[in-house]
Amino acid sequence: MTESLATGQRSLGDPAIRFPLWPPLTAGCPETSTAEVAYPVEVDYDYADVSPELFKQPPLPDIARWAPLLPPLHAPTLGEGGTPLVELDGLFVKDESRNPTWSHKDRLNRVTVSAAIGAGAPGVVVASSGNHGASAAAYAARAGLPAIVLGSAESPPVVQDFLRAYGAHVLSVPAAGRWPLMRQIVERLGYHPVSNLTVTHTGHGFGPEGYKTISYELYSQLGQAPAAVFVPTGYAELIYGVWKGFAELRDLGVIADVPRLYSCEPATSGPLAVAFRSGQDTAKVDYRSSDAYSIGASVSGYRGVVALRGSGGQALTLSDEEMAEAQRWMAARGMWAEMSGAASVAGFRQLGRSFDGPVVCVSTSSGLKDKGVGERVPATAEATWESVERLINP
Amino acid sequence: MTESLATGQRSLGDPAIRFPLWPPLTAGCPETSTAEVAYPVEVDYDYADVSPELFKQPPLPDIARWAPLLPPLHAPTLGEGGTPLVELDGLFVKDESRNPTWSHKDRLNRVTVSAAIGAGAPGVVVASSGNHGASAAAYAARAGLPAIVLGSAESPPVVQDFLRAYGAHVLSVPAAGRWPLMRQIVERLGYHPVSNLTVTHTGHGFGPEGYKTISYELYSQLGQAPAAVFVPTGYAELIYGVWKGFAELRDLGVIADVPRLYSCEPATSGPLAVAFRSGQDTAKVDYRSSDAYSIGASVSGYRGVVALRGSGGQALTLSDEEMAEAQRWMAARGMWAEMSGAASVAGFRQLGRSFDGPVVCVSTSSGLKDKGVGERVPATAEATWESVERLINP
Repeated sequence: MTESLATGQRSLGDPAIRFPLWPPLTAGCPETSTAEVAYPVEVDYDYADVSPELFKQPPLPDIARWAPLLPPLHAPTLGEGGTPLVELDGLFVKDESRNPTWSHKDRLNRVTVSAAIGAGAPGVVVASSGNHGASAAAYAARAGLPAIVLGSAESPPVVQDFLRAYGAHVLSVPAAGRWPLMRQIVERLGYHPVSNLTVTHTGHGFGPEGYKTISYELYSQLGQAPAAVFVPTGYAELIYGVWKGFAELRDLGVIADVPRLYSCEPATSGPLAVAFRSGQDTAKVDYRSSDAYSIGASVSGYRGVVALRGSGGQALTLSDEEMAEAQRWMAARGMWAEMSGAASVAGFRQLGRSFDGPVVCVSTSSGLKDKGVGERVPATAEATWESVERLINP
Repeated sequence: MTESLATGQRSLGDPAIRFPLWPPLTAGCPETSTAEVAYPVEVDYDYADVSPELFKQPPLPDIARWAPLLPPLHAPTLGEGGTPLVELDGLFVKDESRNPTWSHKDRLNRVTVSAAIGAGAPGVVVASSGNHGASAAAYAARAGLPAIVLGSAESPPVVQDFLRAYGAHVLSVPAAGRWPLMRQIVERLGYHPVSNLTVTHTGHGFGPEGYKTISYELYSQLGQAPAAVFVPTGYAELIYGVWKGFAELRDLGVIADVPRLYSCEPATSGPLAVAFRSGQDTAKVDYRSSDAYSIGASVSGYRGVVALRGSGGQALTLSDEEMAEAQRWMAARGMWAEMSGAASVAGFRQLGRSFDGPVVCVSTSSGLKDKGVGERVPATAEATWESVERLINP
């Protein structure tokens, strides 16, 4: 395994401002952030030393294969990444439900739990209603670090068990109290936060680096850059990671252009769409609940507008009906996505335009984690031929 | 994609008896089976034409990469296989929850749904309490074939939704009536059965061929054959597939020896252990329910004794407590297996011996599908520091 070429942290608020690589700036850029807008940091690398062979390898699991362009990976792998690209009726779906905890979040948490270890933290803390929390718990467990998960009582019952499965300390608290409590845990226990601490979303500065590996894999799987990528979007760490990965491939001369990126948010909130369309860096909106609970957000992160502006993309907002319809479309072709994961396919269908090259929709998670799953009890039938006839000719 | 080298079907009851490749003998060997014991068939190949390059490829998803040693793959892929081999404290775990419907069954159903298409069937029918049925429904949906799933009202509520997710016709009927009804569906509608039809288990003759790809991948991932493989076992199609894959690698001169194989059944029933220990080809036992519901079986299949005898292996039976303990051991290291999937790790721990080489446990499915998941509602706490203290120092 090769070494990380990471050289430091850089402000997204002002890319001229740089910081050392350690400690990770878990509350965004201290110089450019204000009381209203928090700007994230990103990781910078010694790109001149990247071997052109790096992008010629097969897209297998364990993101350590991309180690030169990731922060140091101190946490052991659970075999994250290397997810299949599945063609459904000409549309390519990157099936991120094929990760260790069955969502894309594993790519991020390999990196953030590594940061916790590198920083010498005695544990990790995460506020999450689902995938992020379970994934952080799994990587902390694998690394032998204790984890505190601040969950939500509104998460589906299946997801409650999922959060608890890996032996983390899980506390279901009201949403309003989660972030103040998280800050206390960081300050009093010295636990490393692997989710957001700031007024607009910055999250962990190292986290989106893990998502870059999706772009490296897509290049390897397609043998070229896609023309467009549709991405389910909550706080925009994922779409930013996808953007940064392709921007690196372009800057290293591997591909000619970054694909157009399309953020796919629930129409019930959609703060990135508000920020992007109004030319702001971030926005706050009234939060209304969506069945795509994994991507519900009332504040956006600046990373989202960076990805959309940088790629010539667009911010899409999807109704719950559009996402449910996309979820059914995928399931009828053999792939059961979480409703939030189907937002990308819903976005592609809503946009209704063709592209001059492959189109990729990132499907982030499994339908097993959706609202309502396991809450219906099916009717039983008698084992008679008449039951079969009623079933197939209702 | 290269062509299948399949040449025909061969009886396991008497390997001298061969049949043409089509139609698939979905009710076992018609010549050797009796009213008490049904013998399966397997697929034979023109092994002399196998390229030595076949086993030098990276273990990526889509089992069509092993097409020469599989029956013809008429059904489109969902990106099955290529699952990671994850090391947990020196033990290698083959994480089959990383398949399209999050279990090993996808390897089998790519092959059996292909057989249905090859046979010109107008649909597929499957009797299953969970993973097998959902996987068959997904592959049938992908291939555009209707599917009837005869489910069980005893399956966990999450799994009921899973069975229904892919648009199949699902009928929850009492277990006793399932097999007679399945036969009627086969006879009256001409649907192709992708699960068992016989008195002792034979299943689909082509199905275990899909499981062979696990062995090809393990060889590629380890660079050698493991010394031992532990396999969760219900009807023994999986352990037989693993056996056949390694036996082929041995016969082709790729590896020196087949690993020792250990079948891991619930102690509440365990018909393979009864058959193997008493020198019988199959056995029937009283069925008592196990929380590892996916591998509960009251009759064994002859394939299991073939795999154990051929590999110098052993039949292990695990209590629910041993499997639950293994499940916790894995989860505490970041991997949440279905309880049935953890039977392999439980078997390794029960056996308590060391091997001269890598040991692999196949973990078949995700903890999200277990009994009881989603049926507990967690207590909520106030977002206070005292709540955190009670949590971490209970």
